[in-house]
Amino acid sequence: MRTTLRIFPAADFESVAAALFQAAGTPGPEARRVAQSLVRSSLAGHDSHGVLRIPEYLRFINEGTVSPGAAIEVRRTSDTTAVVDCGQNFGAVGASRAIETGIEIARAHRTACVTTLRCSHVGRLGEYVETAARSDLIAIATCNSPIGGHFVLPWGGREGRLATNPLAYAIPSAGDPIVADFSTSVAPEGKVRVHHNQDKPLPLGWIVDADGHPSTDTNKFYGPPRGGILPLGGSAGHKGFALGLLVDILGCALNGISSTDPDTLGNGVCFLVVDPAAFCPVDTFRQEVARTIAYMKSSAPAPGFDEVLVPGEIEFRTMRRREEEGIPIDEPTWQAIEEHADRLGVSLEELTREE
Amino acid sequence: MRTTLRIFPAADFESVAAALFQAAGTPGPEARRVAQSLVRSSLAGHDSHGVLRIPEYLRFINEGTVSPGAAIEVRRTSDTTAVVDCGQNFGAVGASRAIETGIEIARAHRTACVTTLRCSHVGRLGEYVETAARSDLIAIATCNSPIGGHFVLPWGGREGRLATNPLAYAIPSAGDPIVADFSTSVAPEGKVRVHHNQDKPLPLGWIVDADGHPSTDTNKFYGPPRGGILPLGGSAGHKGFALGLLVDILGCALNGISSTDPDTLGNGVCFLVVDPAAFCPVDTFRQEVARTIAYMKSSAPAPGFDEVLVPGEIEFRTMRRREEEGIPIDEPTWQAIEEHADRLGVSLEELTREE
Repeated sequence: MRTTLRIFPAADFESVAAALFQAAGTPGPEARRVAQSLVRSSLAGHDSHGVLRIPEYLRFINEGTVSPGAAIEVRRTSDTTAVVDCGQNFGAVGASRAIETGIEIARAHRTACVTTLRCSHVGRLGEYVETAARSDLIAIATCNSPIGGHFVLPWGGREGRLATNPLAYAIPSAGDPIVADFSTSVAPEGKVRVHHNQDKPLPLGWIVDADGHPSTDTNKFYGPPRGGILPLGGSAGHKGFALGLLVDILGCALNGISSTDPDTLGNGVCFLVVDPAAFCPVDTFRQEVARTIAYMKSSAPAPGFDEVLVPGEIEFRTMRRREEEGIPIDEPTWQAIEEHADRLGVSLEELTREE
Repeated sequence: MRTTLRIFPAADFESVAAALFQAAGTPGPEARRVAQSLVRSSLAGHDSHGVLRIPEYLRFINEGTVSPGAAIEVRRTSDTTAVVDCGQNFGAVGASRAIETGIEIARAHRTACVTTLRCSHVGRLGEYVETAARSDLIAIATCNSPIGGHFVLPWGGREGRLATNPLAYAIPSAGDPIVADFSTSVAPEGKVRVHHNQDKPLPLGWIVDADGHPSTDTNKFYGPPRGGILPLGGSAGHKGFALGLLVDILGCALNGISSTDPDTLGNGVCFLVVDPAAFCPVDTFRQEVARTIAYMKSSAPAPGFDEVLVPGEIEFRTMRRREEEGIPIDEPTWQAIEEHADRLGVSLEELTREE
């Protein structure tokens, strides 16, 4: 089945999303911020975290799971630490505020650790660490989710105990920064869902059934009874489990709360920020990172590969292409956007010029 | 082939190692520190980083690659950061000083980042982060190696560009801390060597030959021509590569040096330390971590497993057993120790009571 795609310029998607979020009660600057976040994910090629989420985010507002305009409270708990209570405002609004706080602290004190409370879906974690790298800082981010998303098995277990708990980092370089962003499971649930929706078998090693036996059948994961997604690492899955557990603890226990508590809502983000200027001149650091990147890329390619790509490189390439060519969207999602626009009295014609 | 094993109490190994290192010119307290580090690794069951390294470390002294008693310079580069120049003293001496510096900084300022220069083989990275966790702090550690150890392939490449670059972290809990410590490759080179020495095939997915084709033959890795060890992650090896690259950058570029420079010596360690008391009362944190551990362990076991173990748990069990039963050592290594003892005029009889 081939899905019809429409293509619009990034700027149009930003206008559409901002107008819709604003019409649904979001203050203008916040509506624009969330729109930018979704568009940036689409530009980077991460469609699953991109503009296709516009209808979902509008539904969150309707359902009251996101509170547009909610006050965000930044509690500086020491010289170098802060807790950002996002009040269930949009995740992009809360997480942006958290990384900005981390950047401010790291500029003043060289290292920072900032956590979030009541932060809604943050989207692509890489976006926030990239912001820090563009401010000449190294940032590491972790993001957990509460019990409803615990699809990922602990190593040696067959019942889900962790979310796909992504880890991201960004590092300034002489050119584009390095931006890594990946789940600590072998694959994110979204990719399992794509196979499920397309009725395609999964690669072996992604999931097990409820009894813990390997399967390629997405129905064995979704159940009932529900199976689980394996931690990153295959036969070394104890390493992926260790990473996922760290992400969970930095997301909840560090704030004195539990990811299994039904009152715990949203993503628990933790940003660690370090100023490389505390260790060497920032230009030296950028040059050494660029040299490291060049060394990685100097490896002859493995069979089936054209070249070595460092984390973030493919995203920057996609971004440059989509900035020229526009962002694709599937017809059902576009129709859902049109329905919301009708409901909210927003005219899409004035905001878009289909390419 | 069954190797004969001797077994001695941990305290005897500590006395033997300390006496030998001291006889070889190491100041007493430093000799004792290095001995403790090796014995602790053996107690934890990590024999490859344990007392079997005693002859190797004595050889390092002879060869001049380790400088016992070398001054260690702690440069506080800001309120929250430090660079510890270990002067090619023993890695255990330098890395201990670095984590102690990180602990001191984090107690005063809540977060810390400490790197090392000219640090010799640090042994088991988990040891240092555990020290921080026993001081009620969260610590994350990374450790790279210069170009001579670049056995690990970048994702999409077939020429080694990274060492096995371990990552470790430790987190205080109500009981034993969580202590994770793992290479960011699918397996450390030491495990490949064990298979090689025993003439056993490797599991598929550990190495590729020089052309980048999967192999189970250790000769295809050691060559010539040399193959490579794959990054952690199997089909998601881009994630292991991203982790290994982060470890390399924190170990060298952050200090303004390059892991490909022939002048770069030893392990580049980076410690990130965070005081959880900046976020919630430390007892609350400990309880929440214990609750998280209990939740992980509440998962029914997967086929082939008896229970879920959190990182560090197997090591603490082995430690308790070996504290009772003693530490095993193979006959050839014991003979090498005896030869060094003869050479250095150290009487092993007075120091040991074989069990």
